[in-house]
Amino acid sequence: MKYFELLEPHDIEAIHNNVLRILNEVGIAFDYQPALDIFKKAGCKIENKTVYFEKLMVEELRAAAPSEFTLYGRTDEHNVVFNTDALVMIPCYGSPFISDLDKGRREGTRLDFQNFIKLTQSSSVLDMASTVPCEMSDIPIEKRTPEYIQTVLTLCEKPLVVSKDARTMRAAFEQCQILYGSKQDLIERPRFISITDSFSPLGYDETMLKMLIYCAENGIPQRIGGLGLCGLTTPVTWAGNLSQMMAEALAGLVLTQLIQPGAPVVLNNSSSCADMRTLGLAVGAPESAINCIGTAQLAKFYGLPCRSGGAISDSKTVDAQAGAESMMNLLTSAMTGTNYILHACGILEAYMVASFEKFILDEENCGIVKHIRKGIPVTENTLAFDAIQDIGPMGGAFITHPHTFKQYRSLYNPSLFDRSAYLKWEEKGSEDISVVANRIWKKRIKEFVEPDLPEGMKTELKSYVEQGKVDR
Amino acid sequence: MKYFELLEPHDIEAIHNNVLRILNEVGIAFDYQPALDIFKKAGCKIENKTVYFEKLMVEELRAAAPSEFTLYGRTDEHNVVFNTDALVMIPCYGSPFISDLDKGRREGTRLDFQNFIKLTQSSSVLDMASTVPCEMSDIPIEKRTPEYIQTVLTLCEKPLVVSKDARTMRAAFEQCQILYGSKQDLIERPRFISITDSFSPLGYDETMLKMLIYCAENGIPQRIGGLGLCGLTTPVTWAGNLSQMMAEALAGLVLTQLIQPGAPVVLNNSSSCADMRTLGLAVGAPESAINCIGTAQLAKFYGLPCRSGGAISDSKTVDAQAGAESMMNLLTSAMTGTNYILHACGILEAYMVASFEKFILDEENCGIVKHIRKGIPVTENTLAFDAIQDIGPMGGAFITHPHTFKQYRSLYNPSLFDRSAYLKWEEKGSEDISVVANRIWKKRIKEFVEPDLPEGMKTELKSYVEQGKVDR
Repeated sequence: MKYFELLEPHDIEAIHNNVLRILNEVGIAFDYQPALDIFKKAGCKIENKTVYFEKLMVEELRAAAPSEFTLYGRTDEHNVVFNTDALVMIPCYGSPFISDLDKGRREGTRLDFQNFIKLTQSSSVLDMASTVPCEMSDIPIEKRTPEYIQTVLTLCEKPLVVSKDARTMRAAFEQCQILYGSKQDLIERPRFISITDSFSPLGYDETMLKMLIYCAENGIPQRIGGLGLCGLTTPVTWAGNLSQMMAEALAGLVLTQLIQPGAPVVLNNSSSCADMRTLGLAVGAPESAINCIGTAQLAKFYGLPCRSGGAISDSKTVDAQAGAESMMNLLTSAMTGTNYILHACGILEAYMVASFEKFILDEENCGIVKHIRKGIPVTENTLAFDAIQDIGPMGGAFITHPHTFKQYRSLYNPSLFDRSAYLKWEEKGSEDISVVANRIWKKRIKEFVEPDLPEGMKTELKSYVEQGKVDR
Repeated sequence: MKYFELLEPHDIEAIHNNVLRILNEVGIAFDYQPALDIFKKAGCKIENKTVYFEKLMVEELRAAAPSEFTLYGRTDEHNVVFNTDALVMIPCYGSPFISDLDKGRREGTRLDFQNFIKLTQSSSVLDMASTVPCEMSDIPIEKRTPEYIQTVLTLCEKPLVVSKDARTMRAAFEQCQILYGSKQDLIERPRFISITDSFSPLGYDETMLKMLIYCAENGIPQRIGGLGLCGLTTPVTWAGNLSQMMAEALAGLVLTQLIQPGAPVVLNNSSSCADMRTLGLAVGAPESAINCIGTAQLAKFYGLPCRSGGAISDSKTVDAQAGAESMMNLLTSAMTGTNYILHACGILEAYMVASFEKFILDEENCGIVKHIRKGIPVTENTLAFDAIQDIGPMGGAFITHPHTFKQYRSLYNPSLFDRSAYLKWEEKGSEDISVVANRIWKKRIKEFVEPDLPEGMKTELKSYVEQGKVDR
């Protein structure tokens, strides 16, 4: 397999030199004294809160981060390997609203949250779980974090994405200890990864820095970097955006490596453009795909896994725009080789909404792009010369040939998309595919079987939440 | 730019050897004596109607076909260059039904036909016109061909795709002479290209062979090859499908080169799989994209432009499935480098329906993939170091910086997709994007301005049709 590329080697060199120059001459602001102390100790030049990086240091510490690491699930079949060829699908994260065809757009509840986790666990294409697929707006805000973690650890066996702040990370780390053993066990077999955001342009705020330091000290892998709004928080040109975003990601990576050399990092750049008429984020724009391609190329140059892409759309409803934009972003991820695909299912409205029907649509989309990535096996058997000779020129049919019987299961089998003839489709009620998706997610929830977990662990998780242990 | 690839060089070698072996040992049936006579004269072994090809001959004649050629529009701005990097978008062709939101699914009429041509002419993303965007079911079948050509030549200035049979080719050739001069002028500056289909497995029928010979004799470029239904008319494995389809396309190419060495050819493979439950064609399947990738790689190995992909979908309506499947196929074309993108706008139901709303949706999709293909320019200006330094770390905004003002027009500007915030969208009526598309195509038709054409030519075209000159 060879990835789609837009940048020539000399372009990558030019962007990388620009990254180093930005880090060295413009610097990155770190709005948290303990972080500045770490850089000071490492001998960096600091003015006010801005750190200036020596090129050699950046190069050395970038090389210290591993090119491959594993996140562990409850059982080994759920383990996920991150490297520069991985294609890890993770559902929607952190949308303030949810929607479904029955009750429309609204704030999410405990029930909605549980349902998203059930869909994640029962998904054949999702590799990991989000710990905030939506908010539980029906429980007090300070109680949410530990219950989110408890819910996901109880209902789902896949590795997790956790974020928000150091308190949340601690909640996840401590709750994972209930299931998976000591701190040392978790450091050796990490169960979750962060979303450590830069604050564009060229900064990190206190909340993120506290979290970054907590993660680095506790062996928690981090996805580091930001979402630049090209034209607002980054330059409007992609060479400029990529330069700035990689400078931000590498600055975070350097801090991580100063704390713990070899700490696992996924470089992040989930930029897109601002719509210049409204200044709103436009994630369904082709710029989103262009960003994904450039980010993948730079991350491969750095030898590090990266995050970009996702089934993201600006549409307000599960319509043809939602389908096209999400497929554009997902397929670009697959064809250009980004590795940590967050928001791979469910997003509408540029991250504002997690939709149940969109979740099912995107599962199909994820299945499709994963199938394409399986490639074209070329063997004597697949070349099928004998079958072609058996059937011969004109008029024969392969459908009854043994070669077809032996191989047809390698074809993709859709779980949502309709391939029936028009009359059949009309007979079934001329349904828009979102209506079919609505039936599918409700059936999946109804038939969900909770994975086994010893009662003792369940009780301990519950007590961790109820007793507010994270705030002790 | 580097294309996405699934096949390794040794895979391509293995498929190519399989192609040569099929051509040599299994052969291709040509169901038309004049074609067999040409092969006989060239020294080919023939049994019944099956021609067996020497490897050396295939290699030599494949190399005789040009790697680049031009199709000419009415003015030079509409000229289209075909080569192995071209991305030529051509709308829907030959669907038996049409649909729109107002009157639903039905047979097309003269008015529908004219409307599709008006949309083609006024499209900023379509490079060529189809001469059968839909059928005119309200005029007698034998009168359709010349009127189709007349309509397109009158309403549209772009180069054409023409097909069906030799009579249709002659109608197009003679009607183009009214506009563009002598037979020699048309040979030097071809105005249209064919759809010359093989009959899988491994054959060509009389209709297509008559057309192929007419085209080769008159300098008309041809897209040659077939649509294999993997599992039905070709092996169910992709290495087998690609081998058979390339064998079919190359056999047609060889015949073309025997008639006219250097005749321009586009290799075709528009295969997908049959859905194994219904045996119906499934063009929205990921297999369609896999076929596209393999075909592009083989065509580049042969140094010839190719056709595969298109905005094709199995959906019966302009829903999220239609959006996702069409984008999958279009973006794969763009990222893998197929060149002649037929059905780039309008198709639903696996070629059965040409939809007006889908046409508008796909124009947006074509615009998006063309924008992605523009790449990431890397210059001192786009690297934007100075702008990044001006804004500096944390808190600044690029929106008011001169760099943004100078460059923001390079961002993609959607013509259909909605980026507004939820409340704005709700205020406008919470429209599914297909409803917006419905308004857009009707507005485009309403505002259409017919391109200038001397009255004399219009009259002559009309008289060619009315007097039934093609059948003289």
